[in-house]
Amino acid sequence: MKKAHIITIGNELLIGDTVNTNASWIGIFLTEAGFEIERVFTIPDKYDVIKQFIEKSVETADFTVVTGGLGPTHDDITKKAVADVFDCEMVKNEQVLSHIEDIFERRGFRMSESNIEQADVPTACEVLINKMGTAPGMWFEKDQRYLAVLPGVPHEMKYLMSVVVSPKLKKLFPGLEVWVTEYFKTVGIPESTLSDKIGSLDEFMNNGVEVAYLPGPAGVTIRIRASGADRTDAEERLREIKQNLNEKIGSDLYGKGKNLRLAEVVGKILTKKKLTIAVAESCTGGHLADEITDISGSSNYMKGGVIAYANDIKTSMLGVDEQTLKSDGAVSMAVALQMAKGVAKQFEADIGVSTTGIAGPGGGTKDKPVGLVWMGFWIQGNHFALNTIFTSNRLINKKRTVMVVLESVRRHLLGIGSYPYELKPHRP
Amino acid sequence: MKKAHIITIGNELLIGDTVNTNASWIGIFLTEAGFEIERVFTIPDKYDVIKQFIEKSVETADFTVVTGGLGPTHDDITKKAVADVFDCEMVKNEQVLSHIEDIFERRGFRMSESNIEQADVPTACEVLINKMGTAPGMWFEKDQRYLAVLPGVPHEMKYLMSVVVSPKLKKLFPGLEVWVTEYFKTVGIPESTLSDKIGSLDEFMNNGVEVAYLPGPAGVTIRIRASGADRTDAEERLREIKQNLNEKIGSDLYGKGKNLRLAEVVGKILTKKKLTIAVAESCTGGHLADEITDISGSSNYMKGGVIAYANDIKTSMLGVDEQTLKSDGAVSMAVALQMAKGVAKQFEADIGVSTTGIAGPGGGTKDKPVGLVWMGFWIQGNHFALNTIFTSNRLINKKRTVMVVLESVRRHLLGIGSYPYELKPHRP
Repeated sequence: MKKAHIITIGNELLIGDTVNTNASWIGIFLTEAGFEIERVFTIPDKYDVIKQFIEKSVETADFTVVTGGLGPTHDDITKKAVADVFDCEMVKNEQVLSHIEDIFERRGFRMSESNIEQADVPTACEVLINKMGTAPGMWFEKDQRYLAVLPGVPHEMKYLMSVVVSPKLKKLFPGLEVWVTEYFKTVGIPESTLSDKIGSLDEFMNNGVEVAYLPGPAGVTIRIRASGADRTDAEERLREIKQNLNEKIGSDLYGKGKNLRLAEVVGKILTKKKLTIAVAESCTGGHLADEITDISGSSNYMKGGVIAYANDIKTSMLGVDEQTLKSDGAVSMAVALQMAKGVAKQFEADIGVSTTGIAGPGGGTKDKPVGLVWMGFWIQGNHFALNTIFTSNRLINKKRTVMVVLESVRRHLLGIGSYPYELKPHRP
Repeated sequence: MKKAHIITIGNELLIGDTVNTNASWIGIFLTEAGFEIERVFTIPDKYDVIKQFIEKSVETADFTVVTGGLGPTHDDITKKAVADVFDCEMVKNEQVLSHIEDIFERRGFRMSESNIEQADVPTACEVLINKMGTAPGMWFEKDQRYLAVLPGVPHEMKYLMSVVVSPKLKKLFPGLEVWVTEYFKTVGIPESTLSDKIGSLDEFMNNGVEVAYLPGPAGVTIRIRASGADRTDAEERLREIKQNLNEKIGSDLYGKGKNLRLAEVVGKILTKKKLTIAVAESCTGGHLADEITDISGSSNYMKGGVIAYANDIKTSMLGVDEQTLKSDGAVSMAVALQMAKGVAKQFEADIGVSTTGIAGPGGGTKDKPVGLVWMGFWIQGNHFALNTIFTSNRLINKKRTVMVVLESVRRHLLGIGSYPYELKPHRP
């Protein structure tokens, strides 16, 4: 497999002022083109460091991309460093100069000395004309290892990569393998349990398939990828592990696709079953409704909801019994159940769901600690509640509760017998 | 100046699947603590590579942070690599094990073999207990050079850096040159208008102050920073530009602080004035309530709200006139006004606000295009509506609407005569 290095230059990246989206964009681009990204280096605008890193990468990687350090301001010393790596002089390039002059004439701006200097390039390079800006790209070769030096402005870099560099790579590295990636998404099963359930995937990994578990507050995603001579070939290599994962994950799998959202999956089931939903939110404070309504077309099944932050609202808008509120407290099974049923009735929805809990960071007691959440469900007459204790972080508690509620609805509607995190349903 | 290296581990970072926000967060954090970030390395989940990079950084940098590669799944080999760098064995740490057991017990989840393995740590390390998750952080020292190995999950890494690592660094590296950064936050004024209003800041920048405009869907933030021997010294350098910005931005400034949220500022005003609020959301679908309830303590002034996605809910729950809905349509001034007043009455709140619009991407007409939003306000008897057209992007429209509503409430409560984006209020 052909190896690639990415070198991003700039103090703004080191001090965290700019998130390094160039590196991830190039990562995706080169991975899909069949390269293995071995390293991403972020280094300062310093001559010695730039020279050292470029020198080393050009010796070890088949292809190296450098971005940044090519603007018209004084801290740009990349060109000098790269000229010294290839042991050559700088020369004014007439094509670049006239391109820069054109740009300034069109905009009606005055050219400065530093703009004229942008037309200087190392003699060893092939110039990559940058139609999106004034800084030229540069292409170098040494012993069949290649180097592209590109400006750091994202749209200029992307233009040069897509339009100018990409055809060169295809010509120089024919028959590179194509990568295919798939994402398996779950909610309500801890990474460790999921991994135990799936068991060893070594047999597939030995066969060139890569596997990664990606956990987060919105669930655990498993990413698999494989390469092949073409798309069909790569997909063929994924066939067995896909089948294996489908079987092993089973009904815990809510869907596939990097950007797939659980609310979208639930929305499709509701649409198919011609069911409507309404939400009664206390501790999630609107986050559940927000998640549902992020999906376009959700107005077809989402009737709406009530954010019942104050206790009297739980009574007046959702019909929660005042006596129950007093005896059991707002964060209780009984109130969660009544909220879910109440909102379904009020909104004339087939499904009512509710959340009530101690979101934190304050407000916890010994009996009802921060992170305690009760979730109520009224699904076409099925009435139950789930409870668990999440974290001490308010925003994470909101997110996790929303995901568990949506996943519980998905499982119930599909007739799956289990609940997220193997929680036990409480019935009135 | 003390040098720092950041090593981020993970194939998902190399292939561009995950944007490396951990690196930028740590970059900001360590820069403000007085370190010079010399390198950011992103490397694969490979034992040899991890060992080689950690070895080298621990030899050259005063402080190295490693993130990633500590989860409970099989691809995690960071701990082994780091144990070998420090030439030591792995040992089960009882404190970590009991912490992991506590987490699982509290949540009522079953522990797996791989969770138990998470309690194994190199004997050479000091364990950093990770209250946010199961993977422990680790701290190493070698010849007065230090290494922190942290999980890659962002909120866990941030917790350990802020709460556990930071005090250690302060003690070990006293007298570092300190950076002070301030953020001036606005909503409802375009970047270009704000920049015209403020005028040139060159005189301050010549004096070593750095300035940046950071625009986004949640408003425009201006960041200024300067360094000094200590905090007082750095603050002194910022004194004049701060005074200048305060004067020039004036009442458009809703507050200062990187993580300050407009909902928090509005919440403080409501608390001070002893006022309560309720929300009636159509196009924002819960996002407004979600934003308000993200603030801890919001239950003191947030009564709740109604998500009135379906038209009949606008009538049944908020008392919107059926006739008005027919004649003017759901996205109209009259309906926005009635929703705001209706929710204030229903929830017995001092303030009612409402949103109704075409969030997109579908559903627009010639008269009512995608992005059209009406916002209604009932503030202690003051009744008005604002309207504008945002973008074709559903999520951005939700976010922008929420910010404009909150900013309008802020301005009204503070007696500021203008509205966001110089919108004109419509009164019934």
